[in-house]
Amino acid sequence: MTAPQAVQDRYPESVSYCYGCGRNNEFGLKVRSIPAGDEWVAHFTPRPEHMAVPGFVYGGLLASLIDCHGVGTAAAASLGSDDEGQEMPRFVTGSLTVNYLKPTPLGPELELRARPLEVGERKVRVSVTVSVGETECVQGEVLAVRIPDSMQ
Amino acid sequence: MTAPQAVQDRYPESVSYCYGCGRNNEFGLKVRSIPAGDEWVAHFTPRPEHMAVPGFVYGGLLASLIDCHGVGTAAAASLGSDDEGQEMPRFVTGSLTVNYLKPTPLGPELELRARPLEVGERKVRVSVTVSVGETECVQGEVLAVRIPDSMQ
Repeated sequence: MTAPQAVQDRYPESVSYCYGCGRNNEFGLKVRSIPAGDEWVAHFTPRPEHMAVPGFVYGGLLASLIDCHGVGTAAAASLGSDDEGQEMPRFVTGSLTVNYLKPTPLGPELELRARPLEVGERKVRVSVTVSVGETECVQGEVLAVRIPDSMQ
Repeated sequence: MTAPQAVQDRYPESVSYCYGCGRNNEFGLKVRSIPAGDEWVAHFTPRPEHMAVPGFVYGGLLASLIDCHGVGTAAAASLGSDDEGQEMPRFVTGSLTVNYLKPTPLGPELELRARPLEVGERKVRVSVTVSVGETECVQGEVLAVRIPDSMQ
């Protein structure tokens, strides 16, 4: 059985350098968004330095994970249900909202689940949660927009 | 003339390990928020790896900068106008909203300006902008809350 392909594995080479999710960014976080039914799932274990205060995950890291997982989900959702063989489009972030519901413990693996809320040709709105085990710690929303010509 | 003291220089030692702004986090971004009239200002030059796509700054980094500069501003604003000699309290992020108005070019120094919108005992709401030269690229808002006992 081969590993499931992530959305980010399918981005064109020239737009795969993102600090959050680019497979070609050697210093980055390498978020990988995997389809799972009508959701997309990503797992990430923060590094020890990704702290807010000792014992808890830095909110900016959580925002970064939500950003990239949301944008990847938006790109995949824009292809519709039968995306075989289509090139994965690149979206970027138009806006990002993050609600920190509970302090996120530093150490365990985080699970991100994303669900498209509105899918348009140029804009896709996505809801994202971050959980540790059964506990939902963070909720976010990403408005992703198709990458403008000026950025590629 | 000595360098102006940043809000983050005044955080208690035990809560100065934040990846975004902790003076004790050797891998972090070390955001420093400096008072400037009724605003607080921070400058930051992204590293080459902090890219979204080649030539442009990663949105998650921008969210991180807004987060820490907003929280630092909230802490300082909570002290009121005569804060000499008072211990700087530590706030954390309750929610974060970021609007990416224009792609932010990667290379130049960024200027963040933060302004308190509502200052309560336990919650402070702060508006933050990110500019490159005269161009405002990103707007954000941070709802900062006084650090709960469970986090310290």
